[in-house]
Amino acid sequence: MSRTLRPPVRLLGGGDAVLALDIGGTQIKSAAVDADGRIDAVRRTPTPWGPEAVVAAIADLARAHARRNEVDLRPRSVGVCVPGLVDESRGVVRYASNLGWQDVSLRRMLERELGLPVSVQHDVRAAALAESRIGAAYGYPSALVVAIGTGICGALVIDGTPYSGGGYAGEIGHAVADPQGERCPCGAVGCLETIASASAIARRYTAASGIAVGGAREVFDAAQRGDRHAAAVWADAVTALAQGIARLVAAFAPHAVVVGGGLAQAGEALVGPLRAELDQMLSFHRRPFVLSARCGEDAGVVGAAITARDLASALRAGAGGRV
Amino acid sequence: MSRTLRPPVRLLGGGDAVLALDIGGTQIKSAAVDADGRIDAVRRTPTPWGPEAVVAAIADLARAHARRNEVDLRPRSVGVCVPGLVDESRGVVRYASNLGWQDVSLRRMLERELGLPVSVQHDVRAAALAESRIGAAYGYPSALVVAIGTGICGALVIDGTPYSGGGYAGEIGHAVADPQGERCPCGAVGCLETIASASAIARRYTAASGIAVGGAREVFDAAQRGDRHAAAVWADAVTALAQGIARLVAAFAPHAVVVGGGLAQAGEALVGPLRAELDQMLSFHRRPFVLSARCGEDAGVVGAAITARDLASALRAGAGGRV
Repeated sequence: MSRTLRPPVRLLGGGDAVLALDIGGTQIKSAAVDADGRIDAVRRTPTPWGPEAVVAAIADLARAHARRNEVDLRPRSVGVCVPGLVDESRGVVRYASNLGWQDVSLRRMLERELGLPVSVQHDVRAAALAESRIGAAYGYPSALVVAIGTGICGALVIDGTPYSGGGYAGEIGHAVADPQGERCPCGAVGCLETIASASAIARRYTAASGIAVGGAREVFDAAQRGDRHAAAVWADAVTALAQGIARLVAAFAPHAVVVGGGLAQAGEALVGPLRAELDQMLSFHRRPFVLSARCGEDAGVVGAAITARDLASALRAGAGGRV
Repeated sequence: MSRTLRPPVRLLGGGDAVLALDIGGTQIKSAAVDADGRIDAVRRTPTPWGPEAVVAAIADLARAHARRNEVDLRPRSVGVCVPGLVDESRGVVRYASNLGWQDVSLRRMLERELGLPVSVQHDVRAAALAESRIGAAYGYPSALVVAIGTGICGALVIDGTPYSGGGYAGEIGHAVADPQGERCPCGAVGCLETIASASAIARRYTAASGIAVGGAREVFDAAQRGDRHAAAVWADAVTALAQGIARLVAAFAPHAVVVGGGLAQAGEALVGPLRAELDQMLSFHRRPFVLSARCGEDAGVVGAAITARDLASALRAGAGGRV
């Protein structure tokens, strides 16, 4: 049931012990964090269907992480992150297509079940927070964190806080990249995701070459071997990403741009050309540092843990407010 | 030397008496605000060449506004707004092309000359602040204010504060609109300004029709009369604006989009089609209210006055910090 992968980041520093969970469409990642900030091995559990079943699974995981006792964990709070439209101030998942959820009061359900304060956060904003506090964006006053996988999502981190826009911000994958492009499943035309997501890269390559591929990784490898269809599809993706980022640089001038998600496993082979194209597109704008994400695939869990700690601190400080 | 136009907004409410100035490439607009928040008639003075001459002119204006005594003004602070790249936290104008300024420590110069605390702000962020506090964006937690004139600039107002990005934010006119488009004077290719600014509309119409025009207004009128070149140029501008705004809606989900600047004098004839096209381009995104600016051409002066009042309050509260 669980694989124990070590996240690239293993230490958060001293603070509250918390439990952190990243609820994805296929699996729940979970980890305990102790008072010294050691992050337990991340456990992976298949995601059951429906919010009630997920809440029950999380209750099981809370017991499992306590019983295993790899670290001395008495969590003060629980941090959860979820994909979709997440209203963090209210702890409500407005809409999560790959969970099939709509208007789920996840915070209230979990607090009732667990008897602990719970923070609910968007998964990419959680990952962006992790990159900002202890990852690639550490030390930059502002950063745009872009996650490129099946979809594309972003988060602007301002003074250490990812901007949420009531849960609607960061949908840069559903911003028009090619007005003459194809219709996106979201209903809009020419979304960045239709050109530059990992799934779009695979799909577009197959459409151009007639060759079926398992994913963007194969397209990348084919491009490296000189396959012209693969090279063209990959180049289109990089250009569309660079244009999308350039527009956000013009509007928000982030000090750093951090590229994460599955596609970013290509490392400098993606980030290098992206940096070069972006540089060509800018003029007097403040040029951001373009960096690969450092918190890896468990960034969501790490960010959820940080938010849970912030919540515990705020509650102890008597602020009472939600982070 | 001065025309006395009444701004659409004449009252700020009770607070400190302040002096407010909007330093443009051709003229300085200035107004006194009394403790009841009455905004004096806005005075217009030609902008002299160079920062020292502008500082001297502002000192003269401070005396003139006191002497005229239309309102009982003993300013507690002075608010100034300027075009270009303005670092508000330091009170430094990094670069202002139409003033010919580079790295001008305007706040320090003015505080020494006037013996009063001075706030220095970007002109469009000042206008956006005015729209947010007492104009079209009043009551919305977040708003994107877009000023369309000779150039195009924007400001995202979050919780009542325009986001400045160290002075580099808001350059939405220099975000790529057409990657295959013309080179912009800024050095980048296909900037929104090359399609949708008032000057671009006039220039593109002349290029298409061979007919010289005095400005975008004539193109708009020609389009209304059925001139196909004018209609096409105007339609391209509206589409490019809608796309640029749609991208920012995807990324930041502002509650309202406020359209101001010279081109916005077309009113609903601009805002109506813009709203309709934007609506077509969005899917699950949070749809903003698309509104015409209400503070008019003196919005910069009004915003500078608000910032000057905020500064005076902060100083009195002992915060000592700059707003």
